[in-house]
Amino acid sequence: MQGAVLHGTRDVRFDEIAAPKITRPTDAILRLAATCVCGSDLWPYRGTPPVEKPTPMGHEYCGVVEEVGSAVTSLKPGQFVIGSFFTSDNTCPHCRAGYPSSCQHRESVTGAQAPLVRISNADGTLVPTPEMPSDDLTPSLLTLSDVMSTGWFAAEAANVQPGKTAVVVGDGAVGLLGVLSAKVMGAERIIAMSRHASRQQLAREFGATDIVSERGDEGIARIKELTNGVGADCALECVGTQQSMMQAIRSTRPGGHVGYVGVPHGVQFGGEELFYTHVHLHGGPAPARRFLPNLIDMVWNGKINPGKVFDLSLPLSQVAEGYRAMDERRAIKTLLQP
Amino acid sequence: MQGAVLHGTRDVRFDEIAAPKITRPTDAILRLAATCVCGSDLWPYRGTPPVEKPTPMGHEYCGVVEEVGSAVTSLKPGQFVIGSFFTSDNTCPHCRAGYPSSCQHRESVTGAQAPLVRISNADGTLVPTPEMPSDDLTPSLLTLSDVMSTGWFAAEAANVQPGKTAVVVGDGAVGLLGVLSAKVMGAERIIAMSRHASRQQLAREFGATDIVSERGDEGIARIKELTNGVGADCALECVGTQQSMMQAIRSTRPGGHVGYVGVPHGVQFGGEELFYTHVHLHGGPAPARRFLPNLIDMVWNGKINPGKVFDLSLPLSQVAEGYRAMDERRAIKTLLQP
Repeated sequence: MQGAVLHGTRDVRFDEIAAPKITRPTDAILRLAATCVCGSDLWPYRGTPPVEKPTPMGHEYCGVVEEVGSAVTSLKPGQFVIGSFFTSDNTCPHCRAGYPSSCQHRESVTGAQAPLVRISNADGTLVPTPEMPSDDLTPSLLTLSDVMSTGWFAAEAANVQPGKTAVVVGDGAVGLLGVLSAKVMGAERIIAMSRHASRQQLAREFGATDIVSERGDEGIARIKELTNGVGADCALECVGTQQSMMQAIRSTRPGGHVGYVGVPHGVQFGGEELFYTHVHLHGGPAPARRFLPNLIDMVWNGKINPGKVFDLSLPLSQVAEGYRAMDERRAIKTLLQP
Repeated sequence: MQGAVLHGTRDVRFDEIAAPKITRPTDAILRLAATCVCGSDLWPYRGTPPVEKPTPMGHEYCGVVEEVGSAVTSLKPGQFVIGSFFTSDNTCPHCRAGYPSSCQHRESVTGAQAPLVRISNADGTLVPTPEMPSDDLTPSLLTLSDVMSTGWFAAEAANVQPGKTAVVVGDGAVGLLGVLSAKVMGAERIIAMSRHASRQQLAREFGATDIVSERGDEGIARIKELTNGVGADCALECVGTQQSMMQAIRSTRPGGHVGYVGVPHGVQFGGEELFYTHVHLHGGPAPARRFLPNLIDMVWNGKINPGKVFDLSLPLSQVAEGYRAMDERRAIKTLLQP
């Protein structure tokens, strides 16, 4: 079969790769209905850090169970399923405490930008839909594998609740779905920080009440101005740079909450500054498995349509263009059809 | 009058200083029943950073209202009161959100190691006791001004709840009162990290169920061992160094909470490590004003006796020895009688 392989900086190719096989009795093989390019894929794509050898890409997936290992009990071939970018046994103490993405037996999903993918910990990881979904639901179901769950976690970690004011730092797909999540969780005011017209528009569609295009100190000053000098109750950090992190922290009122889900790259927190800001800080890789039943239900019932973040859809064979379009910010997020 | 003045590194003197006066109509002057030396006083005492000029010391206090400014409405001379080390108006948005130590009009209390002290924002800051306390209650009431409220905040920020496992990093007075707070909040297991026999004993009196004397990686390994490899639910960081902070973070399970109240000195958090630990982080200067009514009630009714942390009591004139004893760890905390 052929799938996406990163060979070096800005060099992703549609290459011949080995089809996955069951390697442990707890594995499953899925035939993907759709896959996509993640904002986090852009880090190695841009050379941070550079890949050391050709690397199969992709960790967002949904599709039909093709084969299961002998120890898999809850799934059978033919079911449509969604799982997280980290697999989890869903039984260990960390899973039971609500953090399956820190599962004691977690493994990273790789090579999902392909027709078939192997998923370890299949019983603990994969959640079936009520029945076979119609094609128009596929993009939204696909987002639950990572990007929507990550936006949802940003909002949860930022303690979004009815009536609160939330700031969303980052207008990538995660930030936009952070806006949608904050809306669903009842935030009264949602301030999206964005400088791009098309993203501002989608942010408004998802529930943003205000747009702030300034960044850094000016952006922080604008947030303070919009909140009577107090700061926001909740900040969703959806980028992972030093600037975006400080923007989130400094936009938050004392006692407020910062949820950070952008994988930090070179970010350092000064202890003394953090101490005097009085913010709550929580984040990490989204515990997507915990959210899946609820989010599947909301997609199934038409309550949310996170698939709107895909503004480019390509056959998997054109994966290189899918990365390029996101890298150049011509696309928010690229859907790939195997 | 005479009070404590820090002249340079390890040079604190009982000096003639000007008696405080009402400078604004919202001020009050208190005659102190007792005062004490704070762990945070040891930082400048040890030269971190060195004082630039002779500096009156002390920010923990309780005593009798001597005089009030013309705008003070809720207090009158003769009342016994306790207040926080930060004054607060108790009406601004940050106060109303529960963070009076980030009050928009907060001021630091200084010069409280003296017979009299001026307290700004008197109406918002000072909380009277039900009636004049007996002398034996004075030490415990004094702790509510800072050290007990700080230990309490560490436990609150670490989300201590009935049945949880809490680790307390730091066996100074704050850490020991963090143990007491965790006990009152219902922690089932309280692991105190301490290498000093007398402090271990007081930790046990306050409710510690386990003592870990190892530090750094060995200490973290011991905590993991005591928690079946999972980590603690809650960690109370009561020191403020890089080592103590990392010990707290790395001893906590994914999804657990770290409450940090030791003023950070040179502490840096690496964003990526923090991200993958999945801990909640919250801390800062304790919002003592919020806790005072409840803590006064518990002291008044004999439910807690935090005054036990004073293992040295001196006349104020011997303040230099009070600092020395704490610096050399001969005393946990020094009570000073004006």
